[in-house]
Amino acid sequence: MKPTHIEHIGIAVKNLDEAIAYYEKLLGEKCYSVEEVAEQKVRTAFFKIGQTKIELLEGTSDDSPISKFLEKNPHGGVQHIAFAVDDLQQALDEAAADGIQLIDKTPRKGAEGLNIAFLHPKSTFGVLTELCEDPNN
Amino acid sequence: MKPTHIEHIGIAVKNLDEAIAYYEKLLGEKCYSVEEVAEQKVRTAFFKIGQTKIELLEGTSDDSPISKFLEKNPHGGVQHIAFAVDDLQQALDEAAADGIQLIDKTPRKGAEGLNIAFLHPKSTFGVLTELCEDPNN
Repeated sequence: MKPTHIEHIGIAVKNLDEAIAYYEKLLGEKCYSVEEVAEQKVRTAFFKIGQTKIELLEGTSDDSPISKFLEKNPHGGVQHIAFAVDDLQQALDEAAADGIQLIDKTPRKGAEGLNIAFLHPKSTFGVLTELCEDPNN
Repeated sequence: MKPTHIEHIGIAVKNLDEAIAYYEKLLGEKCYSVEEVAEQKVRTAFFKIGQTKIELLEGTSDDSPISKFLEKNPHGGVQHIAFAVDDLQQALDEAAADGIQLIDKTPRKGAEGLNIAFLHPKSTFGVLTELCEDPNN
């Protein structure tokens, strides 16, 4: 497997609007998209910096993964990192052959039309890790 | 302030050698540098992916910031994010003018010869945030 770049960094926040205001100052540009993903019980906001997006994530329900993360990290923090690959199924097969455990053995649809899959936290040394493929590339 | 890209992501790990072996599989390339930074009580390992480096950090003493991070996050996790800027002093001045609190009001020397400064966690919504300037650019 050879990812090309870091597609995005997912950051859990308590209050999306306050965090958007901070990141607009830090990154010197406006948030380009705010979207609620009902299935995952989150509201998201996206910024672009170089090759990478910053994805802010606010839980919309107490049982969302973001709300659970915030129970352990009440100020917020980096919840996951997503690596871009050219061929996601091939990357998953190579990861499995390398002994990396997978949550998703085949790609599924994620935000922004990407095909995504998660690696199993048992293999990733504490960093929730996503692989992404842009089907339009 | 307008950072150009994410310079590196700092990841705290319990065991540097085991984490290096995993990231060599994940990123499909060898770690290019292992370095002990005695002053910060860490051992570090660097990888490159696109514009960004992955910096693995292992504490070398129980009172290192990494050891303290691992007390709260025993499996490891993302400890900080570093943003590249062209002019660090100007970025710090702009951040202060925008109401972002600073730890370092002027640049200091960091790993790999970069000039660095940290923002104050009170301002950064749970993400320890570093700004970096490459004096050779």
